Amino acid sequence: MENNRDGAFASAAELTTGIAARKAIRAGQWTSHTSGLAPGHVQGNVVILRAADADDFLRFCLRNPKPCPLLAVSEPGEPLLPTLGADVDIRFDVPRYRVWRKGELVAEPTAIAELWQADFVTFVIGCSFSFEQALLDAGIPLRHVANGRNVAMYRTNIPTTPAGKFHGPLVVSMRPMTAANAIRAIQVTSRLPNVHGAPVHFGDPAEIGIADLAKPDFGDPVEILPGEVPVYWACGVTPQAAVMEARPELCITHAPGAMLVTDLLNHQLAFS
Amino acid sequence: MENNRDGAFASAAELTTGIAARKAIRAGQWTSHTSGLAPGHVQGNVVILRAADADDFLRFCLRNPKPCPLLAVSEPGEPLLPTLGADVDIRFDVPRYRVWRKGELVAEPTAIAELWQADFVTFVIGCSFSFEQALLDAGIPLRHVANGRNVAMYRTNIPTTPAGKFHGPLVVSMRPMTAANAIRAIQVTSRLPNVHGAPVHFGDPAEIGIADLAKPDFGDPVEILPGEVPVYWACGVTPQAAVMEARPELCITHAPGAMLVTDLLNHQLAFS
Repeated sequence: MENNRDGAFASAAELTTGIAARKAIRAGQWTSHTSGLAPGHVQGNVVILRAADADDFLRFCLRNPKPCPLLAVSEPGEPLLPTLGADVDIRFDVPRYRVWRKGELVAEPTAIAELWQADFVTFVIGCSFSFEQALLDAGIPLRHVANGRNVAMYRTNIPTTPAGKFHGPLVVSMRPMTAANAIRAIQVTSRLPNVHGAPVHFGDPAEIGIADLAKPDFGDPVEILPGEVPVYWACGVTPQAAVMEARPELCITHAPGAMLVTDLLNHQLAFS
Repeated sequence: MENNRDGAFASAAELTTGIAARKAIRAGQWTSHTSGLAPGHVQGNVVILRAADADDFLRFCLRNPKPCPLLAVSEPGEPLLPTLGADVDIRFDVPRYRVWRKGELVAEPTAIAELWQADFVTFVIGCSFSFEQALLDAGIPLRHVANGRNVAMYRTNIPTTPAGKFHGPLVVSMRPMTAANAIRAIQVTSRLPNVHGAPVHFGDPAEIGIADLAKPDFGDPVEILPGEVPVYWACGVTPQAAVMEARPELCITHAPGAMLVTDLLNHQLAFS
């Protein structure tokens, strides 16, 4: 039991499906990170923008599919996302939101019905939870998971393809592993293009503009043992950073780690 | 026109199908390496053994599928290999053979009908020509191909799984490329398990027991430029070396580079 509101509780062990997780979240019984909820189910990054910004952002995602794989885009003003779950209502179904005005964080509510606008467009973007589960299922250990830390993330010198007001560098997540595991990891994640797909680089961090692996720009540093190489994947922080940089009048995102839990199964994302 | 016998010639430009290539080879009009013949068609390494040795060798190949991917195994005494081409007769259809007695090279004929035994078993093993074409088709440059050299090959400290008299180290071929191209190469060759599949290693040669990349055990050395990593694939020289080491009473192989040209298309080998 990790959450508590109005005397109601939810236990992660009970929230084994997307429907059960969302029901608890919607009832205010779960308001923190969703790692480990509804095992096997796809979770998504959330970005909500007004229509004028949404047009640019949609083109930004389409032009940068590795960091911004779109799992769903709503109709303008429509809070339901039926392709991710019959009952999904983006006004209530994220455990904790962040509300940004002109790039400044102004609130962290657990529902956004009162903020809803008739032209809001919701973007749900694939997240590395899905491919990390696939790697673990393939027998590839992930040190940050074993250590209970956040993955190490870095700004690179690889530019995204801009669209309107959205631009900025590719952000990558890094996982150290042996060469043999890296080869297997490339195979496993290649089958999952909707959750960042294959790595964008491995080996020398300087080649992609990373000065010091011990100093990630986001997340926690991770040890690299002898015989291991750092492997870099495009990261969903890329579009978040582009949105922050663009400073739109109003933007709502999920709070870090508190994702939208969907009814999709990770296995359904694999193209073969 | 590269070959000449009894006044007959063949031009590589004319030998665009497996059938045409084998017809010229069978007629003695082509007696050298088959690189570039019948573009897009699968070529195979050939090992012919007497039944007593063939049983062990079949188990050796099955236990070591990455270096020894079997494209076909004949019935004992049967010179035809109909799954590789309706007219394939292994007594005539290899441009040049090597005949080995107790591990010693004793002859290099262009046909072996006179040597044929009622218990001969033919093994046809996938060859890197197929995956190299797939890499080139994917836009990945291969320096040894561009330079017209043989690929660099190395004995490793990775043991094969022995079977009867056959054993020995894994032999790998190495191709230098950028990390981005290596990631793409892993994807491309993973789809081709019948021609060695994904790499077995990349990066540090010492990790797999290679002392000096500048001194390959077989083939030609190749330059590794800044920003490139060496990528290592299991190599069809592995079973050849195991056979030489075992010194069977009698063994017949193709001469280096003078492969069996089949009717299979490289694209047919991809599993997806």
